Amino acid sequence: MTTTHPLQRLFRPRHVALLGVSRDTDKAGYKFLRSLLDAGFAGRISLLGRQAGELEGLTIHTEPDDLPGDIDVAFNLLGPAQTPAVLEAVAARGAAFAVVFTAGFAEMGEEGERLQDEMVRACNAHGMRIVGPNCMGLANLHVGLNLTEITPLPVGPVALVSQSGNVAVTLWDQARKHDLGFSCFVGFGNQADIPMHEYIDYLGQDDDTRVIAVYLEGLRPGSGDAFFEACARVSRKKPMVVLKGGRTSAGRRAAQSHTASLSSSERVYQALFDEAGMVEVSQLEHLLPAAEALMRCPPMMGDDVAIVGSGGGHSTVCTDEVESVGLRVPEFPAPVVETLSGLLPSWAPKRNPVDMTGAYINDPSLFSSLTELVMRACPSFDAAVNYGLYGLWKGGVLGKESPHDYASAAPLLGALQTKLGKPLVFYTPYADRAHPSFTAMRQSGVPCLESIESVGIALAALRKRGRYLARAGEALPQRQVAPLPAAATTSAVPSQDYSSEVAAYRLLARHDVKLPEVLTAESPEAAVAQAERIGYPVVVKAILPGVAHKSDIGGVRTGLGDAGAVRDAARAISHSVSQALGAAALDGFTVTRDLGRRRELIVGVRRDVSLASLGLIGLGGVLTEALNDVAVVLLPATPERVSRALARLTSARAWGEFRGEPAVPADALADLLNQLDAALGSDPVIDSVECNPVMVVGRDLVPVDAAIAITEKEPT
Amino acid sequence: MTTTHPLQRLFRPRHVALLGVSRDTDKAGYKFLRSLLDAGFAGRISLLGRQAGELEGLTIHTEPDDLPGDIDVAFNLLGPAQTPAVLEAVAARGAAFAVVFTAGFAEMGEEGERLQDEMVRACNAHGMRIVGPNCMGLANLHVGLNLTEITPLPVGPVALVSQSGNVAVTLWDQARKHDLGFSCFVGFGNQADIPMHEYIDYLGQDDDTRVIAVYLEGLRPGSGDAFFEACARVSRKKPMVVLKGGRTSAGRRAAQSHTASLSSSERVYQALFDEAGMVEVSQLEHLLPAAEALMRCPPMMGDDVAIVGSGGGHSTVCTDEVESVGLRVPEFPAPVVETLSGLLPSWAPKRNPVDMTGAYINDPSLFSSLTELVMRACPSFDAAVNYGLYGLWKGGVLGKESPHDYASAAPLLGALQTKLGKPLVFYTPYADRAHPSFTAMRQSGVPCLESIESVGIALAALRKRGRYLARAGEALPQRQVAPLPAAATTSAVPSQDYSSEVAAYRLLARHDVKLPEVLTAESPEAAVAQAERIGYPVVVKAILPGVAHKSDIGGVRTGLGDAGAVRDAARAISHSVSQALGAAALDGFTVTRDLGRRRELIVGVRRDVSLASLGLIGLGGVLTEALNDVAVVLLPATPERVSRALARLTSARAWGEFRGEPAVPADALADLLNQLDAALGSDPVIDSVECNPVMVVGRDLVPVDAAIAITEKEPT
Repeated sequence: MTTTHPLQRLFRPRHVALLGVSRDTDKAGYKFLRSLLDAGFAGRISLLGRQAGELEGLTIHTEPDDLPGDIDVAFNLLGPAQTPAVLEAVAARGAAFAVVFTAGFAEMGEEGERLQDEMVRACNAHGMRIVGPNCMGLANLHVGLNLTEITPLPVGPVALVSQSGNVAVTLWDQARKHDLGFSCFVGFGNQADIPMHEYIDYLGQDDDTRVIAVYLEGLRPGSGDAFFEACARVSRKKPMVVLKGGRTSAGRRAAQSHTASLSSSERVYQALFDEAGMVEVSQLEHLLPAAEALMRCPPMMGDDVAIVGSGGGHSTVCTDEVESVGLRVPEFPAPVVETLSGLLPSWAPKRNPVDMTGAYINDPSLFSSLTELVMRACPSFDAAVNYGLYGLWKGGVLGKESPHDYASAAPLLGALQTKLGKPLVFYTPYADRAHPSFTAMRQSGVPCLESIESVGIALAALRKRGRYLARAGEALPQRQVAPLPAAATTSAVPSQDYSSEVAAYRLLARHDVKLPEVLTAESPEAAVAQAERIGYPVVVKAILPGVAHKSDIGGVRTGLGDAGAVRDAARAISHSVSQALGAAALDGFTVTRDLGRRRELIVGVRRDVSLASLGLIGLGGVLTEALNDVAVVLLPATPERVSRALARLTSARAWGEFRGEPAVPADALADLLNQLDAALGSDPVIDSVECNPVMVVGRDLVPVDAAIAITEKEPT
Repeated sequence: MTTTHPLQRLFRPRHVALLGVSRDTDKAGYKFLRSLLDAGFAGRISLLGRQAGELEGLTIHTEPDDLPGDIDVAFNLLGPAQTPAVLEAVAARGAAFAVVFTAGFAEMGEEGERLQDEMVRACNAHGMRIVGPNCMGLANLHVGLNLTEITPLPVGPVALVSQSGNVAVTLWDQARKHDLGFSCFVGFGNQADIPMHEYIDYLGQDDDTRVIAVYLEGLRPGSGDAFFEACARVSRKKPMVVLKGGRTSAGRRAAQSHTASLSSSERVYQALFDEAGMVEVSQLEHLLPAAEALMRCPPMMGDDVAIVGSGGGHSTVCTDEVESVGLRVPEFPAPVVETLSGLLPSWAPKRNPVDMTGAYINDPSLFSSLTELVMRACPSFDAAVNYGLYGLWKGGVLGKESPHDYASAAPLLGALQTKLGKPLVFYTPYADRAHPSFTAMRQSGVPCLESIESVGIALAALRKRGRYLARAGEALPQRQVAPLPAAATTSAVPSQDYSSEVAAYRLLARHDVKLPEVLTAESPEAAVAQAERIGYPVVVKAILPGVAHKSDIGGVRTGLGDAGAVRDAARAISHSVSQALGAAALDGFTVTRDLGRRRELIVGVRRDVSLASLGLIGLGGVLTEALNDVAVVLLPATPERVSRALARLTSARAWGEFRGEPAVPADALADLLNQLDAALGSDPVIDSVECNPVMVVGRDLVPVDAAIAITEKEPT
């Protein structure tokens, strides 16, 4: 049911123009035409080239102004010098879209970026939009559109959205190992005009697309919120799987020179993908196994896996794999084991995993019958894994009396998966080769995977999808007011001094943050007086505007139990701060109640290249930096978003009920994050607001230090 | 230079007997003979079968007593019922080794274990030793010995030691993707007699073996120290790579029913492998990529990697991969970038990674020439990675004017690697298929890998090996006195009560552990008196013999600054302990100085199924359980072993110099572990001794709580 989507003419063009064609069959200027013709494109094709004449029966025009006026897609192969002028002319004639294969723009640096911006502006002015530049091309194989160098491309239901060309080529090649094919492809390269979420939005309503695979190096600056909205919506209907390139700092440098992507941190993307229900993989080679599973199988609605296979070693490593991706392989109840005992040799393990031993060599339909037996007997189980030297063991020759061959046994598993409504996943080490039994299995809906590792990837993806669908009813919260732009894009100067803890507290208080009593004192004697007001034990800290780690230079003393201790501490602080920074640095002391040893979090908000602002929750206390355990929360924060962010922390277990303490209150954390976000949004010069630590006192959160940054920082 | 190793007759037999042969060519009783004949075994072959006659020109004997007396290896295919008696008869006739393919022994449970023990005892009594039972077979392909079901096996320099048969079959199949072959193979199954380290020891001196690959589900109980010694010694000469099956709890259950392996925890194996210089992989599919790299490349002696390839997306994900395995991709110095600018298009990234763009299509020797250029210009770099759509891009057809084809360009990289003495690793997505250019590259010594993931596996393995070789001079410390056996194997009863913290302190003090002052008090008033002696602030704890988590029931109060606070705290402890456990549970109080917020470790020793005893170091404090961050230290502890164990912790960064604190003293930690080990060894009923937490106070370690366990526990 494709109504007129804004990208309709891009993906279903009736008229394609190729700009920069060549008669040399070795050149790209010919190959793209070849691909288009091979794919059986039924629409009109116009050509622009240096020399007039004919090519494959089509007229070559030499002037853009000679091209027809109803072009849907102009595919540009010209050099970077000619491209802007030609595209503007084509745009002026009314072309709707240009796909710019040509490289040499923003990925080259400032000069290229300027050129690119001008080109986009000029084309947009005529109503034409641009894919790329520096991109691999475009395809919609179900309408015979192949604007890539590779012909033929395998046709099927996977849409591929890739910022990189060679990544796409690699995936097209790998698809043979999964009996997969592609519906649409878009290489979006430098993403100068159309932001990537528009493609996602189109593919969400494309009937030929059942799963969307994404390779992404970076979003367009500021487009994170729109990206999230589109993906969260589309992935309710169709599974999405994503690989993020540029996850490490050197990888980000590589991505920047590749597609000019100024990227947010890995954690921002992790939060975006996770919240949008997209399945993120960490390796190029994991994209298609995940896509295969998500496309073929129902989602996995719980954690328990039954394993039925042949071979003890595979059994052991397969069990390890399932558990190491966070799922469970529980023992079967005794009656199930007893039933299996009547069917399998005495020495075959049966408690889960079940080792059917070599019996499948005489009857490979045992895979489905034994799997059905255990899955029916254990209705609480959520998925089943089969494995064995299936298909090509001893050349694929089965025992003489076998009622089934491999190829006829395979669809039985597909039928079983449909009946159970739970995922079945198959592993055989031979599955990287072509074999009718593997194809039969895949066609009947069961992923047939070549590695134990892929079993983990597939189940983890299915479980992630199950979790997302289970919360599909959760409303997507909208920002009430868009935050002000960051200082970097304005000429604002700070309206006030935010550099001290006291100033930070003042701002937070204006935004309803509940704060502990913080008293200030100018001298050790004054600190004692304040301590007497607050009650012992207390913490005394130096006020040191602009100094980040006060405790590193002896600026913090805790557990002070009486007046003498407070006096001594304040003097000691004074002394060590003077030694470290000079006597002028110290601007007095703060005195607060010492809450003792508590669970400590870092809670903060900051601006980001992709998102207007984002929340951060991390493990607080002395180990923070050592563990670098921080998760991003999309804003506005909700208790659900906070809970999921806490679950992404390495220290996740510490934030539930733990050693007699109640769970950290997600609702209070969400409120605090939204209050901090309001504080951030109150002044464009503010780059981040952070409370570190926030003490967890029963069900209360107590920020016991706060800092505001106004300088530009590297993205987290 | 193979002198007469104890396993010489097993791996280089002159006379092999097959027990349980069959004329049915579908049966194992025939297939193993077929494999042996196909491999061209030049020695004598004797057969035992049910029916007399001839098979493949060899006489079938029907009685064990008719077999010749000089059998080196008797390969047993008989059923489990007949096996013990026949093997004993063969042993009595003087056979040196039996390889028992037959399953149905210890992996079946107690009855099978009894049968297995009796069989081993009876055979050993005649001097015969046993491989297996429940094992895949044996091979030494360089002497024509193939006692497996698979024929032919690919011949080469990789020795495979596998506890599982189907894992071995899978690796033999995968070897085709790496142009690899095998020297020796041993499937050791239930490992009833010969412990696995004896095979390692043999392979260490086998001239046909250049790398040893191991699949292990569990060591024989108590053989961990000998395993460590053999592997640490052999891996100085030859790289070893290992996959541990049964890393998760369900995986251990699967392993136990598969090969009767009662296994230590993943952490024990991690420490054993790490200390022995073995490269551990986490996936079955990672074993051969690691083995290939270790076999072909020199070790990697530092962390810096140059990346030279074709294609921006591969460039980005490859950089991510290298950094995510803990290595670095530093930027090249400006002059190198400038030199590259003269050779590559302006828009090609050159700062590391270098993108040679599609230029290799006209000249694939660019891979070696550009790599040589950057590696010579950057002598501090330690390895190089190449990647691209190499070999099969567009059917493998290169530009017309190319001076090289792929196959002729490949060995140039091999020659470069030799010249540089640093690893080169190549990635092309087509490398899972056979191609002359891939084979040429491998033959010249450069791993040609099919996935980006494998690039990470290969480099991580080479770096690990480099680190091990760099410390190859470090002496292997020997235990002075073997610890007493654990209570489980003795009938000892506790000679004293170890259940309270005070009792634990007493034992530790006897073994020279430096302890803080711990005063005891029977009442709140007495606690105040003790606090006055020690000086404020203090910690007051309940003495609760046998209670593990005192703080969970309100039994610990810290930061007590004056007499009133101590009195109140002791009363409050008394109250909450009474509520939780009844008034009788409380056995008084301890009073110690409160050392304030410090870095806290857990330090302990325990007995283990594999090792006589082992040390444990973990992150202490409230997050211990949440993070489950514990590393094993082999005993006796040395500062080096401790430092490496600290590096294995997730919280590794916290234990070096950190926020103004000096590094945690590894020498003091080693001393403490050895003292605790002596305490453990002083009484066989003691199962573990643990100090939790140990406070790090400058360069001192202060155990502020200790506990002794005498009950049997699950292995860590």
